[in-house]
Amino acid sequence: NRPLLLIAGPCALESYELCARVAEKMAEICERLGLSYVFKASFDKANRTSLSSYRGPGLEEGLGALAKIRSQIGVPVVSDIHDFTQAKAAGEVLDIIQIPAFLCRQTDLLKAAAETGKPVSIKKGQFVSPWDMKNAVDKVRGGGGRNVMLVERGASFGYNNLVVDMRSLPVMRSFGCPVIFDATHSVQLPGGAGGSSGGQREFIEPLTKGAVAAGIDGLFMEVHPQPDKALCDGPNSLALDAVEQLLEKVVRIRNAVA
Amino acid sequence: NRPLLLIAGPCALESYELCARVAEKMAEICERLGLSYVFKASFDKANRTSLSSYRGPGLEEGLGALAKIRSQIGVPVVSDIHDFTQAKAAGEVLDIIQIPAFLCRQTDLLKAAAETGKPVSIKKGQFVSPWDMKNAVDKVRGGGGRNVMLVERGASFGYNNLVVDMRSLPVMRSFGCPVIFDATHSVQLPGGAGGSSGGQREFIEPLTKGAVAAGIDGLFMEVHPQPDKALCDGPNSLALDAVEQLLEKVVRIRNAVA
Amino acid sequence: NRPLLLIAGPCALESYELCARVAEKMAEICERLGLSYVFKASFDKANRTSLSSYRGPGLEEGLGALAKIRSQIGVPVVSDIHDFTQAKAAGEVLDIIQIPAFLCRQTDLLKAAAETGKPVSIKKGQFVSPWDMKNAVDKVRGGGGRNVMLVERGASFGYNNLVVDMRSLPVMRSFGCPVIFDATHSVQLPGGAGGSSGGQREFIEPLTKGAVAAGIDGLFMEVHPQPDKALCDGPNSLALDAVEQLLEKVVRIRNAVA
Amino acid sequence: NRPLLLIAGPCALESYELCARVAEKMAEICERLGLSYVFKASFDKANRTSLSSYRGPGLEEGLGALAKIRSQIGVPVVSDIHDFTQAKAAGEVLDIIQIPAFLCRQTDLLKAAAETGKPVSIKKGQFVSPWDMKNAVDKVRGGGGRNVMLVERGASFGYNNLVVDMRSLPVMRSFGCPVIFDATHSVQLPGGAGGSSGGQREFIEPLTKGAVAAGIDGLFMEVHPQPDKALCDGPNSLALDAVEQLLEKVVRIRNAVA
Repeated sequence: NRPLLLIAGPCALESYELCARVAEKMAEICERLGLSYVFKASFDKANRTSLSSYRGPGLEEGLGALAKIRSQIGVPVVSDIHDFTQAKAAGEVLDIIQIPAFLCRQTDLLKAAAETGKPVSIKKGQFVSPWDMKNAVDKVRGGGGRNVMLVERGASFGYNNLVVDMRSLPVMRSFGCPVIFDATHSVQLPGGAGGSSGGQREFIEPLTKGAVAAGIDGLFMEVHPQPDKALCDGPNSLALDAVEQLLEKVVRIRNAVA
Repeated sequence: NRPLLLIAGPCALESYELCARVAEKMAEICERLGLSYVFKASFDKANRTSLSSYRGPGLEEGLGALAKIRSQIGVPVVSDIHDFTQAKAAGEVLDIIQIPAFLCRQTDLLKAAAETGKPVSIKKGQFVSPWDMKNAVDKVRGGGGRNVMLVERGASFGYNNLVVDMRSLPVMRSFGCPVIFDATHSVQLPGGAGGSSGGQREFIEPLTKGAVAAGIDGLFMEVHPQPDKALCDGPNSLALDAVEQLLEKVVRIRNAVA
Repeated sequence: NRPLLLIAGPCALESYELCARVAEKMAEICERLGLSYVFKASFDKANRTSLSSYRGPGLEEGLGALAKIRSQIGVPVVSDIHDFTQAKAAGEVLDIIQIPAFLCRQTDLLKAAAETGKPVSIKKGQFVSPWDMKNAVDKVRGGGGRNVMLVERGASFGYNNLVVDMRSLPVMRSFGCPVIFDATHSVQLPGGAGGSSGGQREFIEPLTKGAVAAGIDGLFMEVHPQPDKALCDGPNSLALDAVEQLLEKVVRIRNAVA
Repeated sequence: NRPLLLIAGPCALESYELCARVAEKMAEICERLGLSYVFKASFDKANRTSLSSYRGPGLEEGLGALAKIRSQIGVPVVSDIHDFTQAKAAGEVLDIIQIPAFLCRQTDLLKAAAETGKPVSIKKGQFVSPWDMKNAVDKVRGGGGRNVMLVERGASFGYNNLVVDMRSLPVMRSFGCPVIFDATHSVQLPGGAGGSSGGQREFIEPLTKGAVAAGIDGLFMEVHPQPDKALCDGPNSLALDAVEQLLEKVVRIRNAVA
């Protein structure tokens, strides 16, 4: 019965000020609620739907901002890498290395992440069964990684839609890995808005509550002070001022199933 | 915040003795836990995978047994009908008329059920979206039915597999109908065992807990004293002596989200 | 290398005149192209999306019209039945009894159809794997039916969408049954138009050509002189004056794979 | 009515001798049948199911072998790249740069491929709708690529299964790109064999025939002299001595739909 992990932040590393504001507020809420907080933002959105989408500040500037968040706000940080060349630099700054869902079978990326010595958090591919994620875990462990987490973020369900199959939670926990539920990417409608992805913010709460009760070790949430102005994933982001209320419910459910 | 409804019993009406034993035990547990209990068993399994599968005692004998359960044990009863000719007789005995998932678009069946004046519980077809169940509700309401419930029991996900999409729970509740989660049919593997359907009993608990936290009005469970000897749906039935422990967790989660 | 079977007609039996016009024209085209023609129209659409949808003339009047088509135009006729009570009357008029996809697991309906002694054509449920259709075939054969056909009409693929998995064609042919490809229901978007189903007429041609080349014994098509005015399934119906051109391509492909 | 393109070879670049044997035989068959042949083998299998799977000779040795095939056998060659660092070297040898399906949304990879000036062939992700592939095409075109092809290789359909939705063929052709049908990866059962992927070789022929009739510009096939001994994708590879017979059928169908 370790405390629930909460990985949260804006989808993209839009600016240091924005990130600091989110990190500070989240740290404060998590402190009060007894959750273990990790700040997350991407320095590069390498697989946006279209070429004109915002990508972020890039590796160098992004890691700089994350290091500053880490030292100034005093919270651990996680971000995602997109090819093996980014692993070393990322491993020097980040507390957790995240592997994007589309890349969860890329052997070199998983091995490079493992070699950083940092915990590796692998998002389950939308096209991968829960039991096949064991192979991804083994790639990291085989590369020397001692600490692997898995993240459920929905499975392909027809076109432009994802479904959260909560059977995946116990299946993936059975590999001996903490399992995180990504409450906001799970409500994406991939490509569903033409040149970008749509989202169904109204389902963040029921799915989060459901996953906590079904049994998880952590939650992942994209949080933004003004989701409708977010440069990335706005339609499925949670408003910063709505987080606390949701997390209070999460804590109550977590205690009920403890 | 009405008490949670619990619809439970053996899949098929195997014998009066078996049913009475299950109903008595379930009524006692539900009384203690503050749940509202309804006994369920099918008098006819009209769509078994193969011709040689057990079907049940049939309409007349089956309704007789259900009437006896109702009066002897003192619990309301629900069963499913399979064509419009069965509605009238069923309506004279049952407290709730259930419409099977495969038949949830059959207009005459829905109208005949509505005309009994009894509450109608419609299982969501494995091939129907949550929002399209509004049309089934409207068929019952248009036929004079005042009281309609909807039951989530999984959606087709590739072949021989179902996935529970918990987004369906708030979507269907928005029609103004109580929504029930069918915890045991949802873990069926349809046709997955060759001449019969398989099941994944190990997922009943996490899915039940998840659905209660996500928000539902009732639970549906196939319960049998010896699931491995059940004449129908054994692989996805819950053992009678495992029910209480699960329901205690359900009540704790229900209270946490109240 | 028997001639390809072509089952075609308006979705619903709108009027005798309309049906006669379609049957006559189709018979003429099929005669010229060497196809074996069977007229199809439904006397009752028992599972329309909503209560207000057109249903058809009903059993008695409908069978009367079909009998008249049969004798006046000189073509065999097929229609679908929706509960066991309709089988006997239908068997006295129809050349082939069709079982709707949603009802393909209803044991009594399959047995009643078998008992007519007429060939039975079972549509594959949108929720059934190709290999599990063997159980439906066995129910008809076990009920004395000697002649069973299977119809591919798409599988559930997420919500409001169907996908044609052409692997089903050889799988179902391996049961020793002729396999028909339903080219127009396969392009339905179930429930996709709110209170009715949408359709993608533009995909009728590529899917038809693909299925003929992959290997089938027959085609099924909803054909209407004015699809946009059809009382049922207009969005996925083929225009009567577009049929001949498509069937000429079908015949060329059929000859190429003979 | 350009000649059909045929991209074929062993999945992995196992040895120069094996590749040369396949290329020579395929070139001879294609010459005779009037098909436009391109040799394909992967120098690195970067996303195998498990760490212990065979990966190939790597970039340098692999491109060397492909260059030798190109000059000795006199056929154009295609191979896939897995991160942007490989694009430049690959562009100096290959006639077509292939983007793997899992990586079809990786912006940097698509741009790096575009910058080689060579035609880019993008495999449709198992998790991407046909219409969303327009975004991938635009990424290549936006990066200066003038010549883009798209490859259908199946869409996620539940777990461990793919379905070929032939509607994708006309949808993707509407972008003004040649569309290739990958007949052998489409019959993979991803992860379906535990530590590797299974396959259903028996469906290569019906799906190939179906896709050619539905309308495509090219075919992609993994061909191996001894599929059961292939170091990669054996279960879904076609035997070298079975290719000619299949391609003769392909040509007949192609002529029938011309």
